[in-house]
Amino acid sequence: MRIVWSIGDPHGIGPEIILKSFLKLEGSGHSFLVAGSYRVMEYYRNALDLPVELELIESATAPVRHGALPVLSIAEPENITPGTLSAEAGKLALESLHAAAELCREGVCDALVTAPINKESIALAGSDEKGHTGFLGKMFGVPSPTMMFYDPVTELRVALATIHEPLEQVPALIRKMDLDAFLSALTSSLKTDFAIATPRIALLGLNPHASDGGVMGCEEQEIIRPCIERLSDRLQVEGPFPADGFFGSKMYQNYDIVVAMYHDQGLLPFKVLAFDTGVNVTLGLPIVRTSPDHGTGFTIAGKGIASERSCYEATLLAITIARNRIKQTELPS
Amino acid sequence: MRIVWSIGDPHGIGPEIILKSFLKLEGSGHSFLVAGSYRVMEYYRNALDLPVELELIESATAPVRHGALPVLSIAEPENITPGTLSAEAGKLALESLHAAAELCREGVCDALVTAPINKESIALAGSDEKGHTGFLGKMFGVPSPTMMFYDPVTELRVALATIHEPLEQVPALIRKMDLDAFLSALTSSLKTDFAIATPRIALLGLNPHASDGGVMGCEEQEIIRPCIERLSDRLQVEGPFPADGFFGSKMYQNYDIVVAMYHDQGLLPFKVLAFDTGVNVTLGLPIVRTSPDHGTGFTIAGKGIASERSCYEATLLAITIARNRIKQTELPS
Repeated sequence: MRIVWSIGDPHGIGPEIILKSFLKLEGSGHSFLVAGSYRVMEYYRNALDLPVELELIESATAPVRHGALPVLSIAEPENITPGTLSAEAGKLALESLHAAAELCREGVCDALVTAPINKESIALAGSDEKGHTGFLGKMFGVPSPTMMFYDPVTELRVALATIHEPLEQVPALIRKMDLDAFLSALTSSLKTDFAIATPRIALLGLNPHASDGGVMGCEEQEIIRPCIERLSDRLQVEGPFPADGFFGSKMYQNYDIVVAMYHDQGLLPFKVLAFDTGVNVTLGLPIVRTSPDHGTGFTIAGKGIASERSCYEATLLAITIARNRIKQTELPS
Repeated sequence: MRIVWSIGDPHGIGPEIILKSFLKLEGSGHSFLVAGSYRVMEYYRNALDLPVELELIESATAPVRHGALPVLSIAEPENITPGTLSAEAGKLALESLHAAAELCREGVCDALVTAPINKESIALAGSDEKGHTGFLGKMFGVPSPTMMFYDPVTELRVALATIHEPLEQVPALIRKMDLDAFLSALTSSLKTDFAIATPRIALLGLNPHASDGGVMGCEEQEIIRPCIERLSDRLQVEGPFPADGFFGSKMYQNYDIVVAMYHDQGLLPFKVLAFDTGVNVTLGLPIVRTSPDHGTGFTIAGKGIASERSCYEATLLAITIARNRIKQTELPS
């Protein structure tokens, strides 16, 4: 497989975790590529004294010296100042992401692993993008890609029905969304990308205690239960479960994936159970995309203390998904 | 100290966890009392073959044989059927709770530990009570007692700014509530009940990423931050923190208590971190009240497999709080 890393914010920990992940993966038989800036990669390689040979390439298909990490130069920033916001940094992050995704679209690379970007730097660069998932959705014409989290240690998978929304808007969004289509697409992705023959899905309730039979909120009775009943003859979906008890009693171990109704409902338990090893995956795109499940880490950028674990796991998962997709297309239909 | 257990729903695991807790605590030097039904306690004692000597008493101040667990008979149900809903069971649960709380109000007992009740049985009994916290609030004229959870193993404390509310109403309730008064009262309770001289409080954001500077929701900027600033000269309150990262990175270890804006935001991480040992405490009441942080366990009632750990920890905590309150009143003012 050929994996492309987008460099992320050059003032964050992205370049560092890419270099450290490459050191672990270079003998894996797969090939790697950074879309971003040679100067930035060189800066962190030298500052952190990491034994990575870098090679500046002009085209993603150029031949590369054995053992070197090729860097496709998208832009070369004038200033590299770890831990600071800047328009130039935001611009590089977005352009690298776009270029890296294009390489996957063209089939030059098999999967994209994105290093973290900073929303404020991106805003300084004049863009209102909120994150990778939305950016890639627009780029590939997918209105609502699914944000999923995976922890390879516990094998916990969590998908979010709504993502970066004010809490107040969540109930209306749940009532409005096509939950049937969401769950059907999720099932397809689990089959294709994770090679799970019959995915078992758990749906969390929106309200406390999953509304206790309608005592606290109506969405369980009016939206979630009817949806589960409609889908019962073709998908394995159960719930709605009271979220706290579901995670507290480890019921997630009985399912392939847990669907949380909103951001914190899914990410609170996920980050407690899998802080260092968790991986973010975008489902529903024509390309394979994973990323570490943490941010730019501005406070520790350039210090050499960032853990590459999540980035490394994200890269392994990208390879697995790319392989699973190829296997699926090779199957007799 | 003299602790009263309210029996909870007689068809749930309440009587069992009381009997098992008593076996662990009878040599502790404290005295105990069950407010409920002698027949029910005897039924579970015999069915589960637990070596507890029970003594039926007519008045809470009656003398008791050494080593026996006295049971104050509030009502004696005709049928005892573990795991089933019934009006008679709901009625006994509520009446026992009332009687036990009265014993604390009168000073006959020093603290109340409540076994779990079942909302549906209570509804069958003709009451619309949602839970202990609201019931005791009304009984003692406290409009909004605070629901707090404590785990003696991790020393994690979580308080809820809103409790059993539909998720859709939470943002408006946060905007409407007197957060200053809530945090002042919480600080007082931590001083009095937990003997913490200067409580450090962490406030979680309401929205994902604590709204990322207002990008997703406004309550952090408009309500929570101004409140923290207003209180900064007299209370130690910090935040608002993005909830998932706060728990994922174990930041709770730096604070005496975490305030969650809504039920699942507090209880999801709490139950993952402390499922078996967590304790529920009601702050702000004139009496001391704790309880196990689980429900009636109808599916395992009468089988002898219920864990008494949370009930036992709740009883120990009730003793500690009662002792702290006495110490506070004995201090020179």
